[in-house]
Amino acid sequence: MSKQQLYIVKIGGNIIDNEMALASFLKDFSALEGLKLLVHGGGKKADEISESMGLSSKMIAGRRVTDEATLEVVTMVYAGLLNKEITAQLQKFDCNALGLSGADGNCILAHKRIVADVDYGFAGDVDAINSEFIKVLLQNKVTPVFCAITHDKNGQLLNTNADTIASEIAIAMSEFYEVTLNYVFELKGVLENIKDENSVIQYINIEKYEQLIESGIISEGMVPKLHNCFNALKKGVQKVNIGNASLIKNTNNLFTSLTIDNLS
Amino acid sequence: MSKQQLYIVKIGGNIIDNEMALASFLKDFSALEGLKLLVHGGGKKADEISESMGLSSKMIAGRRVTDEATLEVVTMVYAGLLNKEITAQLQKFDCNALGLSGADGNCILAHKRIVADVDYGFAGDVDAINSEFIKVLLQNKVTPVFCAITHDKNGQLLNTNADTIASEIAIAMSEFYEVTLNYVFELKGVLENIKDENSVIQYINIEKYEQLIESGIISEGMVPKLHNCFNALKKGVQKVNIGNASLIKNTNNLFTSLTIDNLS
Repeated sequence: MSKQQLYIVKIGGNIIDNEMALASFLKDFSALEGLKLLVHGGGKKADEISESMGLSSKMIAGRRVTDEATLEVVTMVYAGLLNKEITAQLQKFDCNALGLSGADGNCILAHKRIVADVDYGFAGDVDAINSEFIKVLLQNKVTPVFCAITHDKNGQLLNTNADTIASEIAIAMSEFYEVTLNYVFELKGVLENIKDENSVIQYINIEKYEQLIESGIISEGMVPKLHNCFNALKKGVQKVNIGNASLIKNTNNLFTSLTIDNLS
Repeated sequence: MSKQQLYIVKIGGNIIDNEMALASFLKDFSALEGLKLLVHGGGKKADEISESMGLSSKMIAGRRVTDEATLEVVTMVYAGLLNKEITAQLQKFDCNALGLSGADGNCILAHKRIVADVDYGFAGDVDAINSEFIKVLLQNKVTPVFCAITHDKNGQLLNTNADTIASEIAIAMSEFYEVTLNYVFELKGVLENIKDENSVIQYINIEKYEQLIESGIISEGMVPKLHNCFNALKKGVQKVNIGNASLIKNTNNLFTSLTIDNLS
């Protein structure tokens, strides 16, 4: 018997920061048939709240660090304000959403990141996904909506990369479902030429990915994003796509599909 | 076949505002065997955050009103910070907690309160509890942890009284379980003499309740609290108790038990 389909979508700041874009996306997302799951990033709201509270970003060696005050703010904004506003809007569109942090139902277990004695503050790297419980939710017609807050099972909440959460959940759920993982961001896909928004590279396999890094066509933020994608594909996720919000509409045909197969 | 027991506890600001009291309570709560559910109020944190953001409380005719900015803050603090900190701590004590607002899984449907043309802002009165879904969570060994944020199924989050949420959930779950509802607050129980902390009235039935109101022994905040309690008892909740944090420990024997039966 073939596995049921599960459609996972990750949205980032470009949609979250724009009220109309978010409402439009959530309406389209609600209209998707079958099992689905949403992961959302943070956007600018946490910075705005921090600023209004008079908190300054803590930087160590040019990197932003999640100190205790920042962790409080992101927990409030990601797990509270954004997660509940998204959930309430999905409910309006008859999508039975349920907002979750990684602490809820022990869904995402993580540990505080420490690399070569560098303290990243309260940043968490994912150790385990409670796929059995997420399956229970899905089988009860619930659409899980994850923010990027995890926990260490020792009472500590941790700030975690939302792209990574999406790929880790996609990998874990591949045990039960045929998973399609969609990264929705500001561009139509991975671009051949950053100055031409329509120069979307429609298919990327691992060979091509390595060429793109070597030639400098992809760099900075796109490298870890694609790394997450290929990691997911290698570990059992069926399909990974990258594109803008129209990606989840059937009418859209310009986006990037990733594959671990050789291109034929 | 007799129904399974469900133990519901509501905690308020006096515990939430005190880090050590909260940790101690959550440890005791985790140790309770059987099915359980927690409802928490807000405490002072929302005021502190509002203040640090330079927001002032909006008062209309001496009443505090939940305007849009306040709703944002309480959603952040109740559904985000407090709910997730409580959930993460319970997870630490091996209680598989899952934090919820009323929007999550459409658990608590409410409508914006409008009484005789008075605008209470974004305050919600409860219309329905999704008892079937809460039962699914309980049967999957999850301990639901509710904050006092609800939704109207039209995309609007609403600020709701936590005592009322606890009693409405208790009533709804009585369909499936023998429910004990426990209100934990700063006193040992309902006091005969407010100046004597040990003058706990151990049993109150409806007759006694009316006498206590008439004689002025109970007033102000205690009247709606007891109203919630008796409403719950009339609508199928098995037991309602009021006391301090020691209420949930078996060793405690000084608290107030409410009953709708005649005292014999």
